[in-house]
Amino acid sequence: MNQRQMEIICVGNELLIGKTLNTNAHWMARRATSLGINVKRITVVGDNVDEIANAIREALQREPRFIITTGGLGPTFDDKTLEGIAKALNSKLEVNEKALEMVREKYEAFAKAGRIEKVELTSPRVKMAKLPKDAEPLPNPVGTAPGAIKRVNETFLIALPGVPSEMEAIFEKSVAPLLRKEGGENLFFEASIYADDIMESVLAPLIDRIMHDNPYAYIKSHPKGEEGKPHIEIHFSTTAKDAKTAKDRLGKAIIQLSELIEKNGGKIKPKKTK
Amino acid sequence: MNQRQMEIICVGNELLIGKTLNTNAHWMARRATSLGINVKRITVVGDNVDEIANAIREALQREPRFIITTGGLGPTFDDKTLEGIAKALNSKLEVNEKALEMVREKYEAFAKAGRIEKVELTSPRVKMAKLPKDAEPLPNPVGTAPGAIKRVNETFLIALPGVPSEMEAIFEKSVAPLLRKEGGENLFFEASIYADDIMESVLAPLIDRIMHDNPYAYIKSHPKGEEGKPHIEIHFSTTAKDAKTAKDRLGKAIIQLSELIEKNGGKIKPKKTK
Repeated sequence: MNQRQMEIICVGNELLIGKTLNTNAHWMARRATSLGINVKRITVVGDNVDEIANAIREALQREPRFIITTGGLGPTFDDKTLEGIAKALNSKLEVNEKALEMVREKYEAFAKAGRIEKVELTSPRVKMAKLPKDAEPLPNPVGTAPGAIKRVNETFLIALPGVPSEMEAIFEKSVAPLLRKEGGENLFFEASIYADDIMESVLAPLIDRIMHDNPYAYIKSHPKGEEGKPHIEIHFSTTAKDAKTAKDRLGKAIIQLSELIEKNGGKIKPKKTK
Repeated sequence: MNQRQMEIICVGNELLIGKTLNTNAHWMARRATSLGINVKRITVVGDNVDEIANAIREALQREPRFIITTGGLGPTFDDKTLEGIAKALNSKLEVNEKALEMVREKYEAFAKAGRIEKVELTSPRVKMAKLPKDAEPLPNPVGTAPGAIKRVNETFLIALPGVPSEMEAIFEKSVAPLLRKEGGENLFFEASIYADDIMESVLAPLIDRIMHDNPYAYIKSHPKGEEGKPHIEIHFSTTAKDAKTAKDRLGKAIIQLSELIEKNGGKIKPKKTK
């Protein structure tokens, strides 16, 4: 099992046809990284049981500590993530009593608020409570469909909804504590500087040199300008136990690289310029 | 080989730490879909030769017609996509003379414009011309690093840069014509309506019924509102040979579903409401 590693699997045709920008993967990757987790892969598949099952099986084989899916938990015919997970595990979906209770409570609240006349657990509603065998539901503070978690060997396999507010709420309530525990004292820190008037091909060997002298700082250049006017973001990151260690490391690398860049004709800007 | 199928592989630690929102995958998925291509999977991996090679090998095994990578073609140490592709193919990188000529021309233009003193093909610059054996370079109209294309059995394996303007320019110039030819008469059409005051669990069986009656229309609901105030985007799409066929199909499904929704207490809004 690969400690601190995580994979994200996003389910939804809307991502594959380019209708929806994948802000969920971005949000979750950023949040998990900040908790000391190492996101190794993000996979996007469509609303298809076999595609979902294949992606889950492949991820399980790589043995990350966490696999988190988003999307496909709702009441419609094309919400197929839990079926895909069950298939990947050669298991079946069954109505989970705790999950059904969560769904019932939501509709009872809707009835109380006068939004529905009576609480009917119709088939699309019961669907949201059908989980893979031995999975546990995760309460959804802002929506109807619960999330789900199931341990598979050493991996936590977690399913979250695709609606961003629901995904984020379940993540913060039920997933972040697990990630924080796994991340332990490994915290992620980052900083950027911006360099003008230096080409990336000139910058490349300078970064090599500074990374060689600063093995704990990872430095990556991101060209932002146009061909006629180089403008490069240089991103520094490190994983450390505390902010002071991280600041010392990144500060040293930033000062050394800035000096080298200026010696080579570049100009350092601490802030992004338009 | 799976006709009209495509996979996108995005390379870059910045995507896995949640620093950068993956607009490249979104743009390319949308553009490919509009040309009649069926994007089956998007994979994001870090700047690591083995991770890249594994993602390429896995995609090749699924035999899509196109595999397109973005990112990792530049001059820095962590631009590793071509090395990953070579490894996946049990091949090596070698300096491609045509690619070297493209790179040289860029620096000659920079020298002419007074941005560099003389044209030196330093090692970071030559790096951008090292392609997997038998790959062809794709000219980069707006940046320095060329793209690359290589046929592997029935699959076109294509590598594009990660800078959005460069990726899009090479895509439009060299990739879109291939995709259009493959897409043939399969064009993608879509439309959305918005429904208020109907819950997704009530909408679900209505969509089922309309999709049963309209087998060529794909209908997916996207909840946008909050728990207290349901507001759902309903997205209709179809693949057709011409706009008239598509309009007829989607128009019929939209009218039928709108009627059903209003019968069930929902309100149809043709436009997005805030």
